[in-house]
Amino acid sequence: MDPASLDAADPLASYRDRFVGADSDLVYFDGNSLGRPLAATRDTLAGFVGGPWGERLIRGWDEEWFDLPLTVGDDLGRLVLGAAPGQVAVGDSTTVLLYKAMRAAVAARPGRTEIVLDRDNFPTDRYVADGVARECGLTLRWIDVDPAAGVTADQVAEVVGEQTALVTLSHVAYRSAWIADAPAITRIAHAAGALVLWDLSHSGGSVPLELDAWGADLAVGCTYKYLNGGPGAPAYVYVAERHLDTLTQPIQGWMGAADPFLMGPTYTPTDGVRRFLSGTPPVLGMLPLRDMLTLLDEVGIQAVRDKSVGLTSYAIDLADQELAPLGVGVASPRDPGRRGGHVTLTHPAMREVVAALWQQDVIPDYRDPGGLRVGLSPLSTSYAEVECGVHAVRQALDEVS
Amino acid sequence: MDPASLDAADPLASYRDRFVGADSDLVYFDGNSLGRPLAATRDTLAGFVGGPWGERLIRGWDEEWFDLPLTVGDDLGRLVLGAAPGQVAVGDSTTVLLYKAMRAAVAARPGRTEIVLDRDNFPTDRYVADGVARECGLTLRWIDVDPAAGVTADQVAEVVGEQTALVTLSHVAYRSAWIADAPAITRIAHAAGALVLWDLSHSGGSVPLELDAWGADLAVGCTYKYLNGGPGAPAYVYVAERHLDTLTQPIQGWMGAADPFLMGPTYTPTDGVRRFLSGTPPVLGMLPLRDMLTLLDEVGIQAVRDKSVGLTSYAIDLADQELAPLGVGVASPRDPGRRGGHVTLTHPAMREVVAALWQQDVIPDYRDPGGLRVGLSPLSTSYAEVECGVHAVRQALDEVS
Repeated sequence: MDPASLDAADPLASYRDRFVGADSDLVYFDGNSLGRPLAATRDTLAGFVGGPWGERLIRGWDEEWFDLPLTVGDDLGRLVLGAAPGQVAVGDSTTVLLYKAMRAAVAARPGRTEIVLDRDNFPTDRYVADGVARECGLTLRWIDVDPAAGVTADQVAEVVGEQTALVTLSHVAYRSAWIADAPAITRIAHAAGALVLWDLSHSGGSVPLELDAWGADLAVGCTYKYLNGGPGAPAYVYVAERHLDTLTQPIQGWMGAADPFLMGPTYTPTDGVRRFLSGTPPVLGMLPLRDMLTLLDEVGIQAVRDKSVGLTSYAIDLADQELAPLGVGVASPRDPGRRGGHVTLTHPAMREVVAALWQQDVIPDYRDPGGLRVGLSPLSTSYAEVECGVHAVRQALDEVS
Repeated sequence: MDPASLDAADPLASYRDRFVGADSDLVYFDGNSLGRPLAATRDTLAGFVGGPWGERLIRGWDEEWFDLPLTVGDDLGRLVLGAAPGQVAVGDSTTVLLYKAMRAAVAARPGRTEIVLDRDNFPTDRYVADGVARECGLTLRWIDVDPAAGVTADQVAEVVGEQTALVTLSHVAYRSAWIADAPAITRIAHAAGALVLWDLSHSGGSVPLELDAWGADLAVGCTYKYLNGGPGAPAYVYVAERHLDTLTQPIQGWMGAADPFLMGPTYTPTDGVRRFLSGTPPVLGMLPLRDMLTLLDEVGIQAVRDKSVGLTSYAIDLADQELAPLGVGVASPRDPGRRGGHVTLTHPAMREVVAALWQQDVIPDYRDPGGLRVGLSPLSTSYAEVECGVHAVRQALDEVS
């Protein structure tokens, strides 16, 4: 099918115009690294300076901001994460929240000696786990994975046991886009008495999530990819309700304390997921995310997912037709049910190809070894853009080969 | 002297117009909790959405954002902190950076068993220290302080010794505005072999700082008070150059790793103060701060301090004349050389007074016990505003008494 017909048949096509720069000639295949801003966010931010910040000033904390990490968290839970209210808080970076969540999990499983993770997990996840393991006297138990796929439930079953404190995995793999079988892996980990921490950075806003239904314990994710929160936007943490009375994290700050404005002599963690907060929450940084959640409420995450599958399937079809003859492989699952919102194309020359494409305003990203990532943010990407980008890859490959 | 004459003689008076809402009738005595936005920040944020974020997209990281925590940090160091380049990084919340700095300090003094701090330190500082002490097996050594003043060098000298790993204090006390004698305290701590961590939240942007000259080891501060960064704006950390090769912090993230985009198998901390970063830095959140640093570069911190002393001295003079007869005390140092940018006025009815004032758009804040804080952000506050606010306090006291 030609891209014009696909765009004409796309029920979400018109949403593309809501994003800044959608009318430009740029081919943007990196919305899975940094999403485009919504045009509405320009007014949101300017209005915030002139209004709530500039006029309400300190009163804004009582009126709205103090609860913002939890109200935005509840919206995220409802629209994106499959989480009932009271389990999600927004704040800190993904890395800091991974640290808090891992420390909390390890403390909740005293005597257990291992953290299970895979070698293809995102670097910051591996680095945090390495640090937490070292400081808490645990060992990392590594799973090797097929780089074009990801961790399977069988692989997890082979390594978990009564020594396992925590299994920490990415729900969608950052290179291959493999979707882990979260319900099965969670059951396996729980059967061994371990907790599970999901990194949702590459799925939140593109793949529907069902944290409550999975029985997940903990989850963390970023908001600057498919949630269009802007560079370095705050992350979120999910803590299942059944753990909220017992899990505690080590960065004891006033915003996670019972009655923070009492400013009492000792720290007592407050009730609920707020105890995973530490310092003053980044109000400004949450506003673009809130705009995107408003849009997702309008569109619905399943419609986003449907378009995402359409875009990635089309990208793979084009790659098979036009790039496979040049030696390009598809290092992402071909089964759309196991594939997230991006597609990785491999070729030994991809580093040079990506550098050449950037010079022409075609913007994928490069991930070792030899992977060109085609990130297809569903609401801001058209089928025509996919075709244009794949043609550019072909041309660049011709030129660098 | 009447306030009109004081405003007429104020060389910085015209800068007030640069801030949103300065033309309103609001009396804002809480710029030491949340500073007013600069009007320029409205355009900065809207322009960022349309420009760097919306047009440059992921390329912004290479072009500017990756280094932003350090370039803004260097500007902070030069204009505010008295720190040579390469020692300051911006990111995370104050609480998270306090955690990192305390953990780094304690790890650098193995075998030492105590953290020294005072009971009037800001709650989040005390909470973090409590958590770090517990997890690292140390004891907190508390200093009791005069609530209308603060920690003295003699008090520190009495408690530090070869058991002291770290002395952690606020440079300006959040209730009394007492300015600690940082050079003397630092010398005393160093003579005992301890490290010193300063919380600069209540001084940065109002009291000139000389971290390098003091010989400080570590410092942390927030940017939403006198640095007008907006609610929940990112904090900063200073690590003295001599410690940059050895101090490490426990939240091992990709943005503090050597060559983060190599995404290698193991974490190696990068050189320099960047190793105190963990996750993706909050780009949007740094922009209002950068606007304020541009203004401070124009004005100069010493001129800001001169006006600050003028404002707090005037507030105390008025309180002595108009409020002392009603039983109001001044719980801040009378020596301007020992007083930061705010003044605390005490009376048993101050909780009710503050509540009544808020109803009339006069906005101080309340701090137990019985303290009304008059925060006087130098560039956005006029002498007329001080007079108007003190009159309102007198009237409210008359009404609630």
